[in-house]
Amino acid sequence: MAYQVAPLAQLIEQFERLPGIGHKTAQRLAYYVLDMPKEQAAAFAKAIEEAHEKIHYCKICCNLTDQELCPVCRNEARDKSIICVVEDPRDVFALERTQEFQATYHVLHGAISPLAGIGPDQLCIKELLARVNQSGVQEVIMATNPTVEGEATAMYLSRLLKPLGVKVTRLAYGIPVGGDLEYADEVTLSRAIEGRSEM
Amino acid sequence: MAYQVAPLAQLIEQFERLPGIGHKTAQRLAYYVLDMPKEQAAAFAKAIEEAHEKIHYCKICCNLTDQELCPVCRNEARDKSIICVVEDPRDVFALERTQEFQATYHVLHGAISPLAGIGPDQLCIKELLARVNQSGVQEVIMATNPTVEGEATAMYLSRLLKPLGVKVTRLAYGIPVGGDLEYADEVTLSRAIEGRSEM
Repeated sequence: MAYQVAPLAQLIEQFERLPGIGHKTAQRLAYYVLDMPKEQAAAFAKAIEEAHEKIHYCKICCNLTDQELCPVCRNEARDKSIICVVEDPRDVFALERTQEFQATYHVLHGAISPLAGIGPDQLCIKELLARVNQSGVQEVIMATNPTVEGEATAMYLSRLLKPLGVKVTRLAYGIPVGGDLEYADEVTLSRAIEGRSEM
Repeated sequence: MAYQVAPLAQLIEQFERLPGIGHKTAQRLAYYVLDMPKEQAAAFAKAIEEAHEKIHYCKICCNLTDQELCPVCRNEARDKSIICVVEDPRDVFALERTQEFQATYHVLHGAISPLAGIGPDQLCIKELLARVNQSGVQEVIMATNPTVEGEATAMYLSRLLKPLGVKVTRLAYGIPVGGDLEYADEVTLSRAIEGRSEM
């Protein structure tokens, strides 16, 4: 790999660090950035820096925001007595897309995973407990991922929250809408049977 | 797509402009950048800006460089009497990987393509003619891509170069090494037959 110009090699290296980007793709992206008009490249660089400078956690729900509170917490029409606990800001985004949920969120920024060295202290759990303690929260919905880590986190939180006199619920498990029974795994199917409802 | 924070939305938009990056991937990359340590994000932004500021064309061969001349043109061991004409800086990189070619290059930065509105004036052709006119160039090897545009460019250049008393050659066509005859297309195969050599 002789004869690669240093600043270009650096840019390729930076792209290569991103998830799912291999050397060939990194090279293609770097050359593309090089071919951009100068203002466009400057805007790209600025977007990276600004995202880091301006975005921080919402004081209430720990979701990402560039203001003191996130748009959900700022919104007075939202039902503040129900908190939906998610692992990641992207999960908030996914739930907002349903346009059905009118309460608030709490973003943990991860799940308890002893293997990855992530314990309860690294997650935004004390902020959640403070919220439940202070204001009139009636229900906490666990919407962590249906993985071992997500389940463990939900279990852990429910044990902490129940003594505070709050109702703790979990998102329903079942077959996904539009899915095919034939391809559903056994665990999902047995959960779907368990959770069946009258028609 | 409500409730996306503005600086984050901007970063996602910037990633989405890159070739082969869709909305979902752009989102994943933007969140990844946001999770980076601050210094790493700053280094990424700087790499983009520096690549634009520091990289320009080599005065002789129009390849990309951050100095006056590119490493190939600076190298005194290189045979300056042979010029290999390529469309793109990445082609130089590919040829350098063979470690067989010991002469110099000339990068056109594209190929003649009337459909895309690219004429000879937009390519680094006058720089090539100046090189051939000035110094003792004996051979120009056309290594443009084996596409309609690449062929047309090679033909055009050969017509300009031959009157200058220089030998003009073209990379060999044939079946790729490690390829399978069964899957070779007709044009490649007939070119391979045409260009057969004695064993």
